[in-house]
Amino acid sequence: MSERDDAVGTVYLVGSGPGDPDLLTVKAARLIESADVVLHDKLPGPEILGRIPEEKREDVGKRAGGEWTPQEYTNRRLVELAREGKSVVRLKGGDPFVFGRGGEEAEHLAEAGIPFEVVPGVTSAIAGPAVAGIPVTHRDHASSVSFVTGHEDPTKDESAVDWDALAATGGTIVVLMGVGKLPAYTAELRAAGLDGDTPVALVERATWPDMRVATGTLDTIVDVRDEAGIEPPAITVIGEVAATRDRVVEFLRNDGERGGDA
Amino acid sequence: MSERDDAVGTVYLVGSGPGDPDLLTVKAARLIESADVVLHDKLPGPEILGRIPEEKREDVGKRAGGEWTPQEYTNRRLVELAREGKSVVRLKGGDPFVFGRGGEEAEHLAEAGIPFEVVPGVTSAIAGPAVAGIPVTHRDHASSVSFVTGHEDPTKDESAVDWDALAATGGTIVVLMGVGKLPAYTAELRAAGLDGDTPVALVERATWPDMRVATGTLDTIVDVRDEAGIEPPAITVIGEVAATRDRVVEFLRNDGERGGDA
Repeated sequence: MSERDDAVGTVYLVGSGPGDPDLLTVKAARLIESADVVLHDKLPGPEILGRIPEEKREDVGKRAGGEWTPQEYTNRRLVELAREGKSVVRLKGGDPFVFGRGGEEAEHLAEAGIPFEVVPGVTSAIAGPAVAGIPVTHRDHASSVSFVTGHEDPTKDESAVDWDALAATGGTIVVLMGVGKLPAYTAELRAAGLDGDTPVALVERATWPDMRVATGTLDTIVDVRDEAGIEPPAITVIGEVAATRDRVVEFLRNDGERGGDA
Repeated sequence: MSERDDAVGTVYLVGSGPGDPDLLTVKAARLIESADVVLHDKLPGPEILGRIPEEKREDVGKRAGGEWTPQEYTNRRLVELAREGKSVVRLKGGDPFVFGRGGEEAEHLAEAGIPFEVVPGVTSAIAGPAVAGIPVTHRDHASSVSFVTGHEDPTKDESAVDWDALAATGGTIVVLMGVGKLPAYTAELRAAGLDGDTPVALVERATWPDMRVATGTLDTIVDVRDEAGIEPPAITVIGEVAATRDRVVEFLRNDGERGGDA
């Protein structure tokens, strides 16, 4: 499927889901199979990357020391390959349009006149809590859910995240890539008025074979993290919903298959 | 796969994704195939429901006039079937743990001692905007994204959604099932200080063959909705990211395949 009439290939911005190959979409699995080239970084995880034939894998996650930033390199490479008539999959962890700079890639492709398609994936932000037994919304105590990243653009002077406003929503807060800055934002949320007893859960390597879960409260979670040795990549869930795990975990079969309590 | 040693079947709380059968996960597709019974309502959409053999489909979305509420009926039926030793798929639109009452079903199953597994799906809340060319986050102008439902529990006296706080986050706001109440919450967001020129997009029947997209601003979107005749189910995206569609749509191939501008 490499050649088109106009000799320009299509780029597919594809979400790989949280890491379990079974959580790839049917479409993602098919496109990985049929693509000429799969551009990826480390985020899809070892199980999914391990299934892609070596000869069509291209790792674009390592170029920090080169002439361009990794993102500039990826943008250029996508255009270059498409102009060679290749069918290109840009495989991204989770969903391509959630904290994944997929939107920037889409705009770059459109500017260069390259046809592209977006293939949504299962986002770790929802699936991570879910496989740990935690629904991000609940009719009785979470009418909204907000997703933020703990790993912000280092070129920015200050945090663009308004923790006061997030606390005021009264809904669930999910922080992606938020292990390192856990002490900072739990303190900000306490200062913003959230109760110290608010349940918090950490889900490390969600859906990977070595997935681990740790639970506590806004007051205790930093100690819990340190004692359990929770490391990135992990997702933080803050809100009443995080307490659901303890009520259901005895009958939850996701854990038996893939990891368990830390 | 119906019988287990202890004669109790497992219940799988499965997300069907936004409606395109290609966006089922590999696992969801396999479980639908192998299950003894698939309990569903209308939300997975006609394409996915149409592929499930009639003899194992059970529609639990219609019981509003009966002895129990639809949710009570579903809860009881899940337990009943599992106790018969059946392998049961509870198929839910999008992701089972996002505004889908999947959390309540999980708690009910755990209370009844029924083993269950959560199978996350692609949520329409992210996939709907994505296939319309709209990333819900952006490094430069959306450090967070919040999801709310426009279709709240009718037994509640007042809106549990704090539109002031959502506006104050500065991030993208995505409203599910929010066509009917569009005039109310766009007014609330204007009153909360959001600029009238803030881009807004409506995505009707996201990823379905007859998907439609309409764009405007906080000030114009109600008129846009009325002129285009946008109807439920639809997703509302509010924030700078909604303007991305116009910049990329010429090269976006999702539209060519499945619907287009309203």
